[in-house]
Amino acid sequence: MKNKINFKTSDLEKMEKQTAVHLINSLGGFKSVALVGTSNGKGNTNLSIFNSFFHIGANPPLIGMIFRPSPPERDTLRNIIDTGFYTINHINEQTYKKAHQTSARYDKEISEFEVTGLNVEYKNNFTAPFVLESNIQLGIEVKEKTAISINNTTMVIGEIVEIFIPEDCLSDDGFVNLEKANTVTCSGLDSYHKTIQLDRLSYAKPDKEITSVIKS
Amino acid sequence: MKNKINFKTSDLEKMEKQTAVHLINSLGGFKSVALVGTSNGKGNTNLSIFNSFFHIGANPPLIGMIFRPSPPERDTLRNIIDTGFYTINHINEQTYKKAHQTSARYDKEISEFEVTGLNVEYKNNFTAPFVLESNIQLGIEVKEKTAISINNTTMVIGEIVEIFIPEDCLSDDGFVNLEKANTVTCSGLDSYHKTIQLDRLSYAKPDKEITSVIKS
Repeated sequence: MKNKINFKTSDLEKMEKQTAVHLINSLGGFKSVALVGTSNGKGNTNLSIFNSFFHIGANPPLIGMIFRPSPPERDTLRNIIDTGFYTINHINEQTYKKAHQTSARYDKEISEFEVTGLNVEYKNNFTAPFVLESNIQLGIEVKEKTAISINNTTMVIGEIVEIFIPEDCLSDDGFVNLEKANTVTCSGLDSYHKTIQLDRLSYAKPDKEITSVIKS
Repeated sequence: MKNKINFKTSDLEKMEKQTAVHLINSLGGFKSVALVGTSNGKGNTNLSIFNSFFHIGANPPLIGMIFRPSPPERDTLRNIIDTGFYTINHINEQTYKKAHQTSARYDKEISEFEVTGLNVEYKNNFTAPFVLESNIQLGIEVKEKTAISINNTTMVIGEIVEIFIPEDCLSDDGFVNLEKANTVTCSGLDSYHKTIQLDRLSYAKPDKEITSVIKS
């Protein structure tokens, strides 16, 4: 690896805007990326890719996400607020190109399910649409919507109320093998990656050596 | 892939607590994972692994993270509040076991730098310690601390004020090649993964086919 290059906030201001955006979007590391499915309550569906998910807590099971400033109107955020429900659908090697295409600015009346060919799946009377092609699907109920005043973004906190995972991806201890489920990760604004597990490590304690917890 | 198994929130309550925690921590997908370096302002350093980072915005460059409820006292959060600064240091294949070890509950006066053998690096007069072994290092200034009342967690929003990245990992368009920087990702509570890039995709537009932006 070559020498390190150093940027300060003031250097970013001198950069071409989109270059700085790409740089900053890259710095946080590999990110969760998934498709958010919503409906407007009148049968119109919406599907959009997001990479700003974060774990907030397990009991109750809460997941957060960040929405960019409005206007322009954000169909997904609108539908989430209007209906109170959405789905989070993992992206895999077979669907990541279609998933990326949902980031195009389509007219409001156009469903990204239709233009990408990804299929709507409704189940368990959950009102928001799941993505049939996703191996891991979550049904979420909105709990909180908070304005982040520092840059006019919005944080939505939702409770995971429905979980669908392939039976053979769930371990006895609750760990879900995302690699076996073919879930991908992303970096920056446009890079998609599959993964190779290095190891699962034992619960860390002082003065105790970390070991692998994978049964050989 | 076998049939899907379905859980509802009520099923989680019947599960062994740690199993449910592991399951919920797995569902959001692959996560950013990095070491947060702080000092208490009296020369005592602290280093701790986190996997709850999320991009909030590029201009100003903001990154968020979630802290679990206190008490018990969280040394990293304490130091962040007291000093106003922290570092985020990417984890790589050579350091992930040591990084995982920082999650053990050490006494307040013990530095995780010392027990893990990871090295402190101070530079550019930044008051918080960087991890020498990290290829990508960020210096962060605290901007906001927000209580998330729904489960007593805390969100900290920081501005990225110092960026150190290997020269050969930065593309002309601002994209940072995290794979080349050997940055790892994590899933669940204890699983670490390296990545294989599938592709970088073009900016999505309606009625235009997605193409690769990687120059061959």
